[in-house]
Amino acid sequence: MVYLHDDERLDYLLAEDLRIIQSPSVFAFSLDAVLLAKFVYVPIQKGNLIDLCTGNGVIPLLLSTRTKGTITGVEIQKRLFDMAVRSVQYNNLEHQIKIIHGDILDMPKQLGYGKFDVVTCNPPYFKTPGQEELNKNEYFAIARHEILCTLEDAIRVSSQLVRPGGKVAFVHRPGRFLEMIELMKKYRVEPKRIRFVYPKLGKEANTLLVEGIKDGNPDLKILPPLIVYDDQNNYTDEVQKILYG
Amino acid sequence: MVYLHDDERLDYLLAEDLRIIQSPSVFAFSLDAVLLAKFVYVPIQKGNLIDLCTGNGVIPLLLSTRTKGTITGVEIQKRLFDMAVRSVQYNNLEHQIKIIHGDILDMPKQLGYGKFDVVTCNPPYFKTPGQEELNKNEYFAIARHEILCTLEDAIRVSSQLVRPGGKVAFVHRPGRFLEMIELMKKYRVEPKRIRFVYPKLGKEANTLLVEGIKDGNPDLKILPPLIVYDDQNNYTDEVQKILYG
Repeated sequence: MVYLHDDERLDYLLAEDLRIIQSPSVFAFSLDAVLLAKFVYVPIQKGNLIDLCTGNGVIPLLLSTRTKGTITGVEIQKRLFDMAVRSVQYNNLEHQIKIIHGDILDMPKQLGYGKFDVVTCNPPYFKTPGQEELNKNEYFAIARHEILCTLEDAIRVSSQLVRPGGKVAFVHRPGRFLEMIELMKKYRVEPKRIRFVYPKLGKEANTLLVEGIKDGNPDLKILPPLIVYDDQNNYTDEVQKILYG
Repeated sequence: MVYLHDDERLDYLLAEDLRIIQSPSVFAFSLDAVLLAKFVYVPIQKGNLIDLCTGNGVIPLLLSTRTKGTITGVEIQKRLFDMAVRSVQYNNLEHQIKIIHGDILDMPKQLGYGKFDVVTCNPPYFKTPGQEELNKNEYFAIARHEILCTLEDAIRVSSQLVRPGGKVAFVHRPGRFLEMIELMKKYRVEPKRIRFVYPKLGKEANTLLVEGIKDGNPDLKILPPLIVYDDQNNYTDEVQKILYG
């Protein structure tokens, strides 16, 4: 039993035996979030995980299939927070996933410094443009532009929340890659694994996944390229497996 | 007519109608050098190009097929410098390629600051280990280890030699990638194009190509992945084309 508002749908969450509430006018998860949830290292038996800028909770829901640890999701938009809470309830995951309505900037004080083993974040990708260029839909605008959360906010807060030796993983655009690396270094999250995502084999990367370790030693690996579509514009085997099992 | 010493060979330079002097006991060019010579932006009709740590001159020779500009190669090892000079002579390229025997650290003073449109460098990849671990062969040791030229030397000197708006391109290993990016930023060479080279589709990158612009604006592109071997361990079409035309 679930309450669906307005144009909300109860979608299947891909390969997993889970459902998720989405709405075309408010928020629907992206492939990027799915890739991040599959990319990040997670402890299997226990652990304390947190997903910042969680939106409708897609990453916590997906992480719950990979770990028995507890997962916290933080979302600043009340409407999205509310969708995430109802999705967690629908899937009977209240014992494992807790969704917090709040600003990620307040989380270190609220939840404690260095208390998490893993932090994930699929932050807003775009620098805030002038008011007139902003997405007319405020939900999308906040999710996509650095209005309430900049890249530096996301990385600083992640570093504050994670324990030394813990993992921090992000998904972002290559255009912000160098800035991201600089900020990770600045906040003592050493980049260890990077995976570039290419829409097709002969195309430039349009997405990157990066995982760092708090106070880790420099030793970067560039993982195999992740190619999304094949020559016939179908998902490659690897992406199909990620999406549909 | 060419003088060949000891175990030197006069090898064909791949796709090009050129020959190059090599020696298994002194120096033979690598795929990395070929990839760098094809990766870097070059002005076609004219320009002033320089290749640091040029070895037996493979990069200047390959660049000569892509540009009518003048090309300088700098090599500190007398024996390699001598091979490079003879290869240039054999190919009748003395009007276009000049090989200098010297330390790259002296080049800005000797050749002038900001006088070059393009700088390339395939530097020694490895930090200098203890004396006992060093390659017993001094030629290889100097070419592979940061004995006479560190990564910071190579980047600082490249930045000094290139004009504002000019290009600087390197090939290196992913393990030194973050350090490289930091040093490029430090010496005002803004990374603009990066290409990761993967031995096979499902493998981690083992090489990277990067090109920056002196005083350029931040705007990084991650170019399509370059895959060297296919499933049957043959060169991929792209690498075959680079190597054999």
